[in-house]
Amino acid sequence: MESAIPAHLKTARSRHRRVPDDYHPPYPSFVARHKPDVTRVVMAYFGLQYRGQAPAGASSSLGDIAARFAGAHAPSHWDRAHYVDQAGFSNVVSVAYWDDVAKFDAWFAPAREAWTGDGEEGVGRYIEVLRPAVARYETLFSSPDRAEGVAVIAEGMSDEVQEHAYWGGMRDRIPLSQTDEMAPGGNPTLRRDGARLRVVAHDNLCLIRSGQDWSDTEAAERKLYLEEVEPVLREGMDFLRDDGRGIGCYANRYMRVLGADGVPTEKSYGQSWWRSLAALERWAESHPTHVRIFGAAMKYLSTLGPAAKLRLYHEVTVAAAGEQFFEYRDCHPRTGMLAAVAAT
Amino acid sequence: MESAIPAHLKTARSRHRRVPDDYHPPYPSFVARHKPDVTRVVMAYFGLQYRGQAPAGASSSLGDIAARFAGAHAPSHWDRAHYVDQAGFSNVVSVAYWDDVAKFDAWFAPAREAWTGDGEEGVGRYIEVLRPAVARYETLFSSPDRAEGVAVIAEGMSDEVQEHAYWGGMRDRIPLSQTDEMAPGGNPTLRRDGARLRVVAHDNLCLIRSGQDWSDTEAAERKLYLEEVEPVLREGMDFLRDDGRGIGCYANRYMRVLGADGVPTEKSYGQSWWRSLAALERWAESHPTHVRIFGAAMKYLSTLGPAAKLRLYHEVTVAAAGEQFFEYRDCHPRTGMLAAVAAT
Repeated sequence: MESAIPAHLKTARSRHRRVPDDYHPPYPSFVARHKPDVTRVVMAYFGLQYRGQAPAGASSSLGDIAARFAGAHAPSHWDRAHYVDQAGFSNVVSVAYWDDVAKFDAWFAPAREAWTGDGEEGVGRYIEVLRPAVARYETLFSSPDRAEGVAVIAEGMSDEVQEHAYWGGMRDRIPLSQTDEMAPGGNPTLRRDGARLRVVAHDNLCLIRSGQDWSDTEAAERKLYLEEVEPVLREGMDFLRDDGRGIGCYANRYMRVLGADGVPTEKSYGQSWWRSLAALERWAESHPTHVRIFGAAMKYLSTLGPAAKLRLYHEVTVAAAGEQFFEYRDCHPRTGMLAAVAAT
Repeated sequence: MESAIPAHLKTARSRHRRVPDDYHPPYPSFVARHKPDVTRVVMAYFGLQYRGQAPAGASSSLGDIAARFAGAHAPSHWDRAHYVDQAGFSNVVSVAYWDDVAKFDAWFAPAREAWTGDGEEGVGRYIEVLRPAVARYETLFSSPDRAEGVAVIAEGMSDEVQEHAYWGGMRDRIPLSQTDEMAPGGNPTLRRDGARLRVVAHDNLCLIRSGQDWSDTEAAERKLYLEEVEPVLREGMDFLRDDGRGIGCYANRYMRVLGADGVPTEKSYGQSWWRSLAALERWAESHPTHVRIFGAAMKYLSTLGPAAKLRLYHEVTVAAAGEQFFEYRDCHPRTGMLAAVAAT
């Protein structure tokens, strides 16, 4: 067993972990490990938004950015997912990950121009980018043998880690928590640049991508996941999407991952923007919608034990103000971080 | 809203609270407030143990100690409760509270001698006493207008407090948590003194008394409590009683409070001894038995809202080694802290 915080990111603590040094988690979990020379990663979400069937321009944009993801200064990994939002719009979100900011910067300018530079009737477009220092994010995986999201670009997975299976583990896995409360600073504001709307959020904005993969489950487990767990998860995701603002959740998308052929896979993830890590912690620990998710997952795991084939993972980032970029064009006002300023 | 830690017990922190300063709990709770000149309290549990009907000596002991509780240097409050333990023995436990250690010391010696000085066929007797400094315990009440346990001897109740309704609130309400992890030190050992067995536990042993009062509930709420919540609570209490050792719970009693006439009231409490506050935290937060209790309680409270007439409270102490006294005579080996040494 090892600490979720890698040796080269350990610092003299001014803040304590929530568990004693002899704490042993009741089941194993794993975290992504970068090479020590990786100091910063980039997580870039490119969204398209439209009603009904995809307009021609949307399809060509998806092809264009896929080509860019394969070209010069390309990301180390990307994936694509789909969901229908609260206003009834389809959203297709392509997420790409870099572990070299210079490479991303060289890549980004023309890609951004192609994505939000021109408008098209009936198609909203958005770009949401974080470029956190590695001390500002953490990952967690139920199995070490299938990376997802930012973990795909890491060197590999850790051994079993200590800081999980208790409330507060998420915070304790973020290296910056050794010395920083990570309190939010300020409020999101809107900046207009012609047809482009940019949101300038605030220090210590929090992003979670939390994923589920039921592709390996067989009959009985699959039925249990789809009938007992997924509906409860969906209810919580819907709450965050529709009513999250009151508890500090600016926006939530519950996405279905698409295969290379555009067909939905047996993977999903929730992606949400939060005012603070503390707000995310409070919801996860005590809100009835997440307590039900937790209860359903506990019942599931205690029924199946180590035989469970369901895979769970997440990545959580607490970004400094200068590590964020949000740009929207022709989107409805409840799209992503626009929702944070629309209601301010 | 105010801090659960009273002003005169605030110290310069070396350890942080788990919530930010602007945290607002989602519902009100209250804590007991002593006068500032109270530096220490005494919680003294006197148990009788027998099979079947109470032997004559047991009944006369109950009358004798009740008389002592009303005599010179008497406690400020006491109550009595009953349960049948895992070995099938009836246990009647009388609990008394003082806020003046000198008074307790003057009272205790003859009472102890009367309780465990002589044996009697078929009757086990035990005394479990903590005398914690006020920085070493906390209370929590769902309503401010009916004190129970140690809170009855306090001057009154606080206004709404901030440190509750999140995992870690229990720790944050204990004043010592400002500067101390409260890690357990050493292992319990047994000392024989003739027929008296004394257990010497260890630094930072933890005691919780957690109570329920459904006497004010009316038909629908009463049915909901007794049919939906109580069975789940009982299941968790049984787990701690029978299998708690593996997770750091030395002993648990799920007691029914008795009226002055010896008749069971509509109040109950769980009383358990823990290796550490951390072990109690881990069980409460993540063990399936308590997650189910929490889920049942959440569902109950969200169904009833502020109309709920059920009253809940607890008191939690983390006692220094020198603040403890455990003595057993003619008890079976799974009685109270005897269970901690029997299995060592």
